[in-house]
Formats: sequence, C-alpha cells, structure tokens
Amino acid sequence: MASVSDKQLHWEEQIADKRKRQQAAIPKDWLIPQVPEGQTNVIDVPRTCGLLTERELKITEVSNVNVLLQKLATAEWSAVEVTTAFSKRAIVAHQLVNCLTEIFVDKALERAAELDAYLKEHGKVTGPLHGLPISLKDQFKIKGLETTMGYAAWIGKYAEEDAVLVQLLLQAGAVLYVRTNVPQTLMWGETYNNVFGRTVNPYNRRLTAGGSSGGEGALIALRGSVLGVGSDIGGSIRIPAHFCGVYGFRPSSHRMPSYGVVNSLDGQESVATAFGPLSNSLSGVTTYMRSVLEQEPWRHCPDTIPKPWSQDDYQLKAHGGGKKLCFGIMWDEGTIKPHPPILRALETTKKALEAAGHSVIEWKSLRHSEYIAVTRSFWLADGSEDYNSCLTTGEPLIHSMDPNADPNVIPDFRVPRQPLSAYQVWQLNKERRELRKHMLDRWQATASLTGTGRPIDALICPPAPYAAVPHGQKKSSLYTLIWNAVDYPALIIPVTKVDPKIDVKPVRDSFWSTDDEVIHGMYDPEIYKDVPVGIQLVGPTLQEEVILGIGEVVDAALLSSGPD
Amino acid sequence: MASVSDKQLHWEEQIADKRKRQQAAIPKDWLIPQVPEGQTNVIDVPRTCGLLTERELKITEVSNVNVLLQKLATAEWSAVEVTTAFSKRAIVAHQLVNCLTEIFVDKALERAAELDAYLKEHGKVTGPLHGLPISLKDQFKIKGLETTMGYAAWIGKYAEEDAVLVQLLLQAGAVLYVRTNVPQTLMWGETYNNVFGRTVNPYNRRLTAGGSSGGEGALIALRGSVLGVGSDIGGSIRIPAHFCGVYGFRPSSHRMPSYGVVNSLDGQESVATAFGPLSNSLSGVTTYMRSVLEQEPWRHCPDTIPKPWSQDDYQLKAHGGGKKLCFGIMWDEGTIKPHPPILRALETTKKALEAAGHSVIEWKSLRHSEYIAVTRSFWLADGSEDYNSCLTTGEPLIHSMDPNADPNVIPDFRVPRQPLSAYQVWQLNKERRELRKHMLDRWQATASLTGTGRPIDALICPPAPYAAVPHGQKKSSLYTLIWNAVDYPALIIPVTKVDPKIDVKPVRDSFWSTDDEVIHGMYDPEIYKDVPVGIQLVGPTLQEEVILGIGEVVDAALLSSGPD
Repeated sequence: MASVSDKQLHWEEQIADKRKRQQAAIPKDWLIPQVPEGQTNVIDVPRTCGLLTERELKITEVSNVNVLLQKLATAEWSAVEVTTAFSKRAIVAHQLVNCLTEIFVDKALERAAELDAYLKEHGKVTGPLHGLPISLKDQFKIKGLETTMGYAAWIGKYAEEDAVLVQLLLQAGAVLYVRTNVPQTLMWGETYNNVFGRTVNPYNRRLTAGGSSGGEGALIALRGSVLGVGSDIGGSIRIPAHFCGVYGFRPSSHRMPSYGVVNSLDGQESVATAFGPLSNSLSGVTTYMRSVLEQEPWRHCPDTIPKPWSQDDYQLKAHGGGKKLCFGIMWDEGTIKPHPPILRALETTKKALEAAGHSVIEWKSLRHSEYIAVTRSFWLADGSEDYNSCLTTGEPLIHSMDPNADPNVIPDFRVPRQPLSAYQVWQLNKERRELRKHMLDRWQATASLTGTGRPIDALICPPAPYAAVPHGQKKSSLYTLIWNAVDYPALIIPVTKVDPKIDVKPVRDSFWSTDDEVIHGMYDPEIYKDVPVGIQLVGPTLQEEVILGIGEVVDAALLSSGPD
Repeated sequence: MASVSDKQLHWEEQIADKRKRQQAAIPKDWLIPQVPEGQTNVIDVPRTCGLLTERELKITEVSNVNVLLQKLATAEWSAVEVTTAFSKRAIVAHQLVNCLTEIFVDKALERAAELDAYLKEHGKVTGPLHGLPISLKDQFKIKGLETTMGYAAWIGKYAEEDAVLVQLLLQAGAVLYVRTNVPQTLMWGETYNNVFGRTVNPYNRRLTAGGSSGGEGALIALRGSVLGVGSDIGGSIRIPAHFCGVYGFRPSSHRMPSYGVVNSLDGQESVATAFGPLSNSLSGVTTYMRSVLEQEPWRHCPDTIPKPWSQDDYQLKAHGGGKKLCFGIMWDEGTIKPHPPILRALETTKKALEAAGHSVIEWKSLRHSEYIAVTRSFWLADGSEDYNSCLTTGEPLIHSMDPNADPNVIPDFRVPRQPLSAYQVWQLNKERRELRKHMLDRWQATASLTGTGRPIDALICPPAPYAAVPHGQKKSSLYTLIWNAVDYPALIIPVTKVDPKIDVKPVRDSFWSTDDEVIHGMYDPEIYKDVPVGIQLVGPTLQEEVILGIGEVVDAALLSSGPD
C-alpha cells in the first residue's frame, strides 16, 4: 500500500532535485529582481533590467546572423563576450518565461575561450558557425548531460555521446550553452511538463508560448538566443514561432540529421519528426540549413537524405530568379475561420507581394480533415504504449495544458485508442500515399492558372486560426499538421502584431462548424493585444532551398510595403 | 459442400481463360517449332530458329542502348522495325522459357508507327527514349490491361490509368510491348505462379531464372528486350540479373517513381520496394536512370525524392574522377562459403581493378544475420494477412518453388508468424536505424585504410552464394537482402560463366554452419556448367550516379583484362 506514495515521493523528489540542480547552474549575479506577476508583457525586460551592458544588448540584438558571424570571424567580438551576452540574456529570459531545461554556461564559456584562442593562433575560424551560440530543444543529446525531455523517468540519464547534429554544430564552430523546454510527450502545441513546469509567452505571460518547441520560441523572442533548433511532427517548430513572433522552419522529414535525438513515439516513421531552426531572422534559418548541409550530415546520420545544399534552388533558378512569382493563398481550411489578425496578416502579405509585382491566386483546401485523421491515426497506433513506457516512476500523464484543469479528467482525444496492427498501419500508409498524390496533383495542376508556365511557386496559409492563446486553449493544429501529413517544408514568417483597434471582433450569426463557433468565441482583441502574428509559406517535399529563397522575396516585399 | 470445388473450378477456369487469351495475343506466324525438352541451353535459339531476319537479329543484338537510340533518332531504323524485331524475339523467348504475362504487340506497333510519323513530320524525336521498346515486370499498371502479378484473383482487373513510370516512359518516347512473369506473392528468388506458370533459365532450363523479376532476367538474356524494369525488396532485380547474366540495378528505395504500381505487402514501408532497370548493358541501366530522372518524376509520384540526375556524381567528381579508386571486397558473409565460380568472379574483378591501377581492401561482414532478421520481421509483420487478402478465389498459397514439392507441406519459414503490433514495428524501426548507423560508421571509418583520403568508393560482394540453382533450390537471399536492409544502391555486373574445368568442387572437411554444408552439397560443376556469374557493386544510400559511374570503371577494367 505504501509503495504508490513512496513512488510518488520518489518522482517528486527527483524533480525537486533536478530543479535545484538547474537553479544552481545559474550564476548568482545573473539573477534579476522578480518581475511582478501582473506585468504580462516582458519582452523589453532584458533591455530594462540592467543586467546586460550596452555592448551585450548590442550583441544580442543583432538580427542578421551573418553580421554576428562576421564580427566573430574578424574578432571584433570575441566568442567569449558573445557567449556571455547570450548566456546572460538567456538566463534573464528564463527568469521571465521559464524557457530553459539544461543550463551549461560554464562549459560554453570554456569552449568559447578555446575558439578565441584558435582564431588568435591560426588567424582563421574553426568553421562556418565559429563562436555562434546556438540553443537546442531538450531532445538533442550532449555528452555528459541529461536529456530529460520533460519526463521524470529520464532524470539522471546522462548521454554517452553527442547527437549527430551536436557533433556537426560543434565541428562548424558553434557554442552550445542551453537547452530549452518542451511539453511532456512533446505531442502538444503548448509547453508544460512535470519536471520543468510551464513556458509562457514573453508578449503576454497569460498566453502560451506554443509548443512543443515552446522553450525555443520564447527564448529567441527575448533574444536569449539568435538561433535555436527544434523539432516538428505536427507544428512543433511553427506554432511557437508564430506565437512568439520569430522565424521557424520545418524542413522535410529526412533532410536534417536526427540520429542521437531522443524523441516521443520513437520508431513511428509514417509521419516522421522533422528537425529545423528557429531564429530572429531568415538569415539565421538559411545559415543554419546551409552550414549543416555543407557538413554532409548523411555521412553520419543514416536517415539523412544525401541532398547537398543547392544554391541554384535558393536563387530560384527554376522559378524565374524570383522576379515574378505566383503564390497560392489558402485563407482557411473550410471548417474554422481564422481570427481577424490572422486574416489581416495574410491580406498584408498578399498586398505586399502584388505591389512587388508577384501574383497571388486562391487555393481552396480540399479533404483537409482526411489528412489530419490519417496522421493522428499513425501517432495513436501504439495505444499509448510509448507514453506509458516513459512514465515508469509513477509520474502522471498530463491530460491538459490548462493550469486549472482537473488532472483526473481525460479529454476524449487523450483516451488511448485501440492499438493498431502492423497490417492496419500498412493500410494507413496506402491511404496517406493517395492523399499525398492528391496534393501533388493539385499543386502541379495550378500550372494552368499561374500565368508563369510553372505551378504556384509557394503556398501561403495561416499557421493557426489564432495568435498565441491563453494556457490550455491551444486546440488542434490543423494548419501545421497538414504539411507534416504530406511532408512539405514550411516556413513561419512574422508579419504583424494584434492591434485591437484594427482587429475588431466580427459579428457572425452563422458558423461553419462547432469548432468554428468555439474558436470564434475565444476571440477578444484585448486578450491578444500586441501578440505576434505570422504567416506560413509552404512548398513541395524537399524543396527547402526554394522555400527559403522565396521567403526572402516575401520578407523583402513586406519590408518595402512598410508597416501595415 | 459443393462450394469449395466450385470455387476451385472457378479460379482454375479463370486461369485457363487467361492463358488462352495470352496465347491468342501471339501472332500465329511467330510460333516456332517446339524445342526438345532435353535441350536445356536455349540461349542461341532466337538466332537459330529462323524466325528473325538478319536485320532483326542485328537490331536485337545491339548491346549499347545509346546506339539503338541513335539509330532510331536518325530514322536509320524505324520504331516499327525495332519494335517488330524485339516483339518477335520476345515471343520466341517466351516459347523457350515462359517469361511473359501480358503481350500487346498490336498496341506497340501502332504506337511505333505514330512515333515514326512524328519523327518524319517534325524532324525530331519525341523524347530521349524515342522508339525504344521497354519491357516491364507484371506490376506496372498500363491503362486497359490487367495487372495479374501471378494472382488468380487479379485476373480481370483492368487498369484505369497508367502507373507514373509508364506515363513517364511513354512521354520519353518508349514503346511498351510486353510485361513479364513473377512468382506468386513476389517474395521469392524464383519465378512461378499459378496463373502463368514457371519461368526457366535460358542457359539451362532445369535451373531457375531467379526472381522475383525472373521474367525480365530471362527475356533480356535472350535479347527479347534490351531494357526492362523490375522491382527489388530483397534481391528481386539482382538475383535474376545474376542468374541470367545481365546487368541489374537496385536504386535506393524512393529514387524512382512507384506510384500506380501493384505490389505485395503494399504499405509496408520500413524496408520498401525499390524499382530499377535490367539490361544487356550498363549503358541501358544508365540511360534508363538518367532519362527517368530528367522527367522529374517527383512532380507526379509523391514518394519519389526530388534529387535530379547528377552528372558530377556520375563522372565521379568527388571520387578523384575515378582515376584511382579503392574498393572494399567482401568475399562472404561468414556463415556460408560461396561456390567456386562466385569466388572466381570476385577474384577476376579484383585482379582487373588492381591491374587498372585501383586498390582493393578487405571488408569483413559483421552482424549480417541481424540485418537479415530485422528485415524479415518487417515483411512478416502482418501474419500473412496481405497474402491472404490476395487469395480470395480459393487459389492456394504456393509453399515451395520446387516442382516436385508436396503442396501440403508448409516449410518453417512460410508458416505465418504472429502478427506484430504497430508499437512492435516502431521498435524494429529503431533496431534497423541502429544497424544502418553501424553500417554507415563502418563505411566512413574505412577512410583511414584506403590511402585515397576517402572512404572506400564502392563495395564488391557476391550477389548470391551460387549461380542459378535447380528449381526450388534458391534458399535465402543473404547477399542481396542486406542492401535492402540498409537501402544501399546495388548493381549486378556479369563477369563470367561457370567452367567445370576451372570451378572444381573443393574438398571441405569442416563447415561454417549447417547452411554452409547444405549449400556446399548443392555444388556440382556439371549442373552449373555455362551458367552466368556476376558480382555485386554497392554504395551508400542514394548514391545511384556514383555506383553507375564506378560500374563503368569496373566494366572497363574487366574488358581490358580480357577473358578470364
């Protein structure tokens, strides 16, 4: 009889110990006075809290990663001072939004010093990412550190070697200094777990930072990192990027190295996790993709497709050099009308592109719900056996991201499904193949509508029907998940912020669905005030370079169209 | 009570009708006098039977596909006469070794006439394969034809549209004229089914042509086709290529278009089927790969990786231009010693490469059986549900390829396994990932041994422990299946023929395993006399162009070393 509470005590004690160790990893003089709970928007606190010097603020507020890299390469800024600046700011961010898991600033500074010494001695950089601090989602194994991924049972599991991505980043000269928070099981669009607690949105701490790469989103928004790496199986890079106002890129599934990563539903390969960057700038995203691919990750990760970085694709050689593109635009998926600021972000983008000489044609969503249903079936095929195998300490499975939810109430979609047989999964794979064919044929068929002789060059759509929502209110991931279903690369570009004066709540007397009514009901401009809004830019499988190149076109169009 | 025999009657009647329709598709004046059963080697019959004109013999005996394409492009040979020549020879081959399923010469000649008219009218070809007859394994759907794949239940299923590969081949100007035989379920290294019967080896009709692309192997060996397309999940392109003395290439799994193909174990994607060419020449293989990739198949098949043909890779730019390569050589997998002619083919190749200035280092097989076991587990994960779903007519599942086997005896490896759950397959996927990492790391680690600064450029190994075996004696596919397990492209290059004077049976008084003893026991130089022997050339995932480029180097070395 005592065993259950003993066990509970045990996992709770383990968590308490882990948190104590995390706290101890924070240099004492980097603690800032507590910000009052009532101060919901903390985006400016790193600048105002007084901990960072002017120079450190300058360093951390560089948006163009290539500028940072150049200053590091010329020793104008040393790796130690850049690492110190980002580490300090990351620690400040953590105190504001609880975004970190592993903190290893000491190791980072040691490495930075080595890099500085190397540059001084040899007069050249160690690699294309020389001295650049990079943050990582709590999945990428680093030798000697735990990879908890929000499970109590994984506390104390120290990695014996680096993940392939970690090896390559180090080889390229990067400095690793923190890892970032995730939701338990990873399969949520918010970020909360029993070990590290909840990550909140820096623009409004009553709202979620999104998930599952929520720690990255919040950290980068606060400029505690200029470039981080997350993962995305249904939107886990793109949701936090959209909610936190940063760039986030989901490459196709096997483009980036995955070996040595801990994961949820590990071994489920029908709709596989993709690994990709989040950054304050598109240059960060592109530099990351290029420098990792230039290391030929397929020589180290068996699942990475040997497809070198294509500068021709990035320069849009097969897309008229990007001079006159034609975009598809999907305003909604037909069952849920996005909130006003989301539609405004799309409209703004459309106008900017048209003003820049591009064209935009309508893309109607078809069979959207089938794509979603098939994908969910893959994920739930184990009847929760994977989750259960990670909850061996007595730690409960979290059933809601709502802080006020009754932990004993299991919502319908979290009730374990009947496990599927291998043969049933084979049938689902066939269904998914037909859906992918359906999408591909529709895409190709647009060639007759674009006027360019090509199919649409990219598709623009909402990243979600809303901006960052109150904790526990992130419903389905309709707009992100569909691109996982077909394995299309997808980029989040920040466009605007919610403005209650413009984004007024429309009066609607009829609804497309029950969900539509519920989500309409969630909208109140004052709740979402000043929260970022992005758009999603999508292209066919493995056309990463094309989407990044077109991303530059969209960015430039938005920039020259001025503030919306 | 009557229903069972009614049902039996039904499927047997269906088969009888199908065979009658097949027979009717053969032009009466293309029938040749029956060759006595005792004449086992029929390889020269197409030349001696008198049906083909001198010119038709000349056309069908061109080995270099590019020569054929050039003569077609210049109208020196018309598409009609080339199609006629290959159709006649295919029909002769069929009468000798039973290699065809669908025969549609009328349609082919109609198309050839259209191509000729086009060339005459426009003065240019319709595409890179203008006028080239291409044979297809009985899996690729062609609008208006049945795709039986050896199942009685699939008789009468007429395709409503072409497979993507068929669309692309037609677009490239190819002429389709026959489809070729397979074993029931496809999961055999021989070719026999209840609908079309058995395909035999043209070098010795008492031996198997191999499988599952056995119809292709036998047809191409007899020069009834210069280029055919097969599929390979465990060796199904490479085994018949080796057994029949032709080139056969298994690309990586998602390099070539697969959409619209009927398949066995459809939806099983952990170790997926690869589609690739068989040909009398390496030029045939390369021309096929290049011309299909140049059609950008990823615009039509959602599962095809958008990786364009790389001429740089084919010219071995990253391999020193192919000037001084280093090969790994794996003589055996450690548990079964290959028969003498197989080892001699390896030895011949090694010497030829060394004489040409390349080097060859030993590659020891490690953990071979684990790779095999994991792969088999994927295939058997459905507990035979896929097979059963294809045997709805009462047609029995074939349990042996031995014509004298008792059909009621089920060998151990054909007894249905307990079906696996989705979660169990996830665990197997993780196991396979570790094995692929193991292979990749070993491959990369050879960089310290090669003296070139690179890892080995390619690996040479046996295609099987034997040349073509008597019917029913094809045991496991150890040497082919392992490359499916890791998804490495693999090319069969014909090297020699069994010569009883050289390939004497060794005296062995100890054996590596029971299988080793059994397979040693199978060897009798007289049985295998004059049967072809190939080698297998292997490289890392998705390096198709590199392996074809290195194939040219091997071919050239063998040619300049003269007859062995």
